[in-house]
Amino acid sequence: MKGYVQVYTGDGKGKTTAALGLALRASGAGLKVYIAQFVKGMEYSELKALRNLSDSIVVKQYGRGCFIYKTPKEEDKRCAREGLKDVWNVMLSGQYHLIILDEANIATHFKLFSVEDLLDLIHGKPENVEIVITGRRADPRIIEEADLVTEMKEIKHYYQKGVQAREGIER
Amino acid sequence: MKGYVQVYTGDGKGKTTAALGLALRASGAGLKVYIAQFVKGMEYSELKALRNLSDSIVVKQYGRGCFIYKTPKEEDKRCAREGLKDVWNVMLSGQYHLIILDEANIATHFKLFSVEDLLDLIHGKPENVEIVITGRRADPRIIEEADLVTEMKEIKHYYQKGVQAREGIER
Repeated sequence: MKGYVQVYTGDGKGKTTAALGLALRASGAGLKVYIAQFVKGMEYSELKALRNLSDSIVVKQYGRGCFIYKTPKEEDKRCAREGLKDVWNVMLSGQYHLIILDEANIATHFKLFSVEDLLDLIHGKPENVEIVITGRRADPRIIEEADLVTEMKEIKHYYQKGVQAREGIER
Repeated sequence: MKGYVQVYTGDGKGKTTAALGLALRASGAGLKVYIAQFVKGMEYSELKALRNLSDSIVVKQYGRGCFIYKTPKEEDKRCAREGLKDVWNVMLSGQYHLIILDEANIATHFKLFSVEDLLDLIHGKPENVEIVITGRRADPRIIEEADLVTEMKEIKHYYQKGVQAREGIER
């Protein structure tokens, strides 16, 4: 099966969640999935669920346990670059059909690695591998290279009402 | 935990997939999930995965095995209304934390049931239940009532290149 490059970006809810749904669907069809989570490093409920789900989904986190709001530290960059190296190996191993680079867009935005690094990865993709890239602020060059791009647009958000992130729903 | 009403709409990819991701996350956190699929009635890979995943996710389909393109038949309406009735019972049972009404927006668009029927359900929601409604063409009155609304906007789609839906990726 030919693989493509999908991008989920925008400020709205549902980018990582859609990627998780894709992982679930792919595993249901017997495909092997690798999820690389950049920037985020927290233990989400979904990771627990994914790990319980099946041996066909591998999740690795390449963040330091917190979101980056301002200037990233050297350690953040080191983690992210190590992650990208792992993804290269995974991609070329021939073992995985679907590779999800969660929050990779925001990683390039914070210059944890460069847009060129991510473009190189896309260009090195074997034909039968599907790549999914999530995160707000996708670089225009990534959008240009992608086959499918969806913008999650926030129309209305209950955070505006002061609702905090809830376990099992947002995390 | 207080529950809200979330809507995922728009022409882009990722609406149902995001709902599946939410189901996965919620189940990872020990919450019980009911997924009612309207309009669609096909056996998707994700259903297989969800059924393997856990007893805490129940999936019921209230469609007739095909998409509706033009005028719905009486049988389509009957199925959808039966589904809505089931959802009422499930919602009031106190057994479920997260209820997903997949493609309910398009069901109102095709008048399988009315927008008022869906609004009634929202107004009858117990405080601790979270409702997620997906499907393109969400009625403005539904958006008005929802707490969180995300529009999946299609920026680029490989269907334009003639790619067919692929098992494990699109279905």
